[in-house]
Amino acid sequence: MVLPMSYWKFSEREILQHYGAIADAISLPIMVYNNPATSGIDLLPKFIMQMAKAIPKVTMVKESTGDIQRMHRLQELSDGTLRFYNGSNPLALVSFAAGASGWCTAAHHLIPDLTLALYNAMLVNDLANAQQIFDQQLPLLQFIVSHHLPATIKAGLKLLGLDVGVPRLPLLALEKTAVQNLEAILNQVRIQPLT
Amino acid sequence: MVLPMSYWKFSEREILQHYGAIADAISLPIMVYNNPATSGIDLLPKFIMQMAKAIPKVTMVKESTGDIQRMHRLQELSDGTLRFYNGSNPLALVSFAAGASGWCTAAHHLIPDLTLALYNAMLVNDLANAQQIFDQQLPLLQFIVSHHLPATIKAGLKLLGLDVGVPRLPLLALEKTAVQNLEAILNQVRIQPLT
Amino acid sequence: MVLPMSYWKFSEREILQHYGAIADAISLPIMVYNNPATSGIDLLPKFIMQMAKAIPKVTMVKESTGDIQRMHRLQELSDGTLRFYNGSNPLALVSFAAGASGWCTAAHHLIPDLTLALYNAMLVNDLANAQQIFDQQLPLLQFIVSHHLPATIKAGLKLLGLDVGVPRLPLLALEKTAVQNLEAILNQVRIQPLT
Amino acid sequence: MVLPMSYWKFSEREILQHYGAIADAISLPIMVYNNPATSGIDLLPKFIMQMAKAIPKVTMVKESTGDIQRMHRLQELSDGTLRFYNGSNPLALVSFAAGASGWCTAAHHLIPDLTLALYNAMLVNDLANAQQIFDQQLPLLQFIVSHHLPATIKAGLKLLGLDVGVPRLPLLALEKTAVQNLEAILNQVRIQPLT
Repeated sequence: MVLPMSYWKFSEREILQHYGAIADAISLPIMVYNNPATSGIDLLPKFIMQMAKAIPKVTMVKESTGDIQRMHRLQELSDGTLRFYNGSNPLALVSFAAGASGWCTAAHHLIPDLTLALYNAMLVNDLANAQQIFDQQLPLLQFIVSHHLPATIKAGLKLLGLDVGVPRLPLLALEKTAVQNLEAILNQVRIQPLT
Repeated sequence: MVLPMSYWKFSEREILQHYGAIADAISLPIMVYNNPATSGIDLLPKFIMQMAKAIPKVTMVKESTGDIQRMHRLQELSDGTLRFYNGSNPLALVSFAAGASGWCTAAHHLIPDLTLALYNAMLVNDLANAQQIFDQQLPLLQFIVSHHLPATIKAGLKLLGLDVGVPRLPLLALEKTAVQNLEAILNQVRIQPLT
Repeated sequence: MVLPMSYWKFSEREILQHYGAIADAISLPIMVYNNPATSGIDLLPKFIMQMAKAIPKVTMVKESTGDIQRMHRLQELSDGTLRFYNGSNPLALVSFAAGASGWCTAAHHLIPDLTLALYNAMLVNDLANAQQIFDQQLPLLQFIVSHHLPATIKAGLKLLGLDVGVPRLPLLALEKTAVQNLEAILNQVRIQPLT
Repeated sequence: MVLPMSYWKFSEREILQHYGAIADAISLPIMVYNNPATSGIDLLPKFIMQMAKAIPKVTMVKESTGDIQRMHRLQELSDGTLRFYNGSNPLALVSFAAGASGWCTAAHHLIPDLTLALYNAMLVNDLANAQQIFDQQLPLLQFIVSHHLPATIKAGLKLLGLDVGVPRLPLLALEKTAVQNLEAILNQVRIQPLT
């Protein structure tokens, strides 16, 4: 999974060259990771398709903009040949409806049964059930994206009995009030309540 | 259907007062129309819920931001009691997956069988079929939103044999090249090709 | 002064046609008014220059984006022949430094001596004095842009002894707390305090 | 000069903690560098003031948003005690008019006489002269910001006879056509033409 992260933002020419250099150096397939909120660079569907054509190892996309139209465009431009995965938690339900091959999330650290249940419901096209499963976990998904992801997951794991420490500085641990909110949400959404 | 259109952008206090005045003056239910691209004002789900609570005639929302998360939020905040309709054509498929009660579109002027087929497929939760029907009409939906809607529909109707004239000035008719593109798209997507 | 205000946003082709039609119908020079916050359409310097070349009556621009670079571009593209006026109150000082021919503002209704003093100081290139005069009135300029302009000016005039009524619905009069803040600011910035 | 650069975007709480930790570890004064285009984090004037109050070593700001109002706000909130420097090249002229203590730029590598002349003209409040000097160098300033800064400066230095190599990968050297444009601009704006 390759994200074009940099202080100086890359041009498309530089991104294409960089992904090509990576492809030449490794033997694994490449998943293009588009997440402008963290990288500061937005890879549009047309350009991603151009990369997939120029670099055979580019075979997958993780789309994290939160804009479902990006997925429709990738589907349309590649005629379904370029597999895309959802990286925006609140889009977990509709990205499957749009044809996503999977969901890259950190939520399964805290609610593995629910994230898996959503995937399984969509695998058999049981939309009514999938909506219900999604609605159940949405409060947690929204909490994760509106707080820091590493701090949230670490706090959540501790609440579940597994202390994995705090984020590295300058990131800080989740604040007390937020931890309490997280605990309430986990108790509300989890199939197996906290003990 | 009420959209808060104005030269001076309204505050939430003014919008609430205005929708209340309209509700007092009419006997019909009100659909809140959120379309910041035309109105310049973005009505957030929390504020729409506040209006629905304060004004009983507000019972529906037409959501046209193109952001699917707005629909999830309306669903969540209203516990499913506030019905929402999709007003963003490229979201036609996933908005139904998100629980939209309907789709407000101009596309049915040109492809009524396809828009209806998408609705019917989603009514019976046949997602695989719905995806296929959606993919078929997506090129037209994208064409409509990337060109002027009134000019596009009028040009399309003329291509279908019904001349309804040109838009009123200062809007202009669709340019020749765009009409040719529209004709090609209509021939590609329609179940019944142009004759 | 012509602003391209519309529900359906105009294309450049339509704007050009519309300004041309206005020019043909009147005998006055035309000031292009660019204010995307109210009109929803952003007229870029390059396009404004294109209009000025195609329509001889277009001789002035009121620039209200708040982006000083637009003025530099107009100056550069027109080689100084297209006069521009500032329409963004917080840019009152620097727009003169950038070569603006004037300042279109509503602030002079409340502080005519200060707005005029700023203009006069810049006319003689007395930047040090202009900075001081600008700093004095900045709190009022910021208040106007962060509240509704018509409501603010009407409330201010009433505080100055001239009751001009309240804005037309659905606009509402300035709220009580805001009126008190406005009164405090007027007392602070005006050369002649309220009596 | 400290910029809050990170993959996971920092909260204000984390930024405050981080700048405090840096201040504790060094004996130098700190210039807060606000450049959301590179860092992905926008430090608003109110928060910068909060940092300056909490951390005595924070005594300067480099403001690179391109929004002149940020400087007016810093001036106003600090009552002139917090010195700010312009980091947005196209704002070189007006930032001095707004009270900037200096200009942090890479342009002086290529046109030191012009950047210095602008500063000197503003030091003596000779606005008319400053405008002329600014207009002369504006094409180069715009070229720098619309291309990659490191690639542009390196290409420019080579044109001036000093070969400093190419940027480190994945950044690429300026393309041939862009180098030719840069050469034409340098010949146009420089007091001493290229030989």
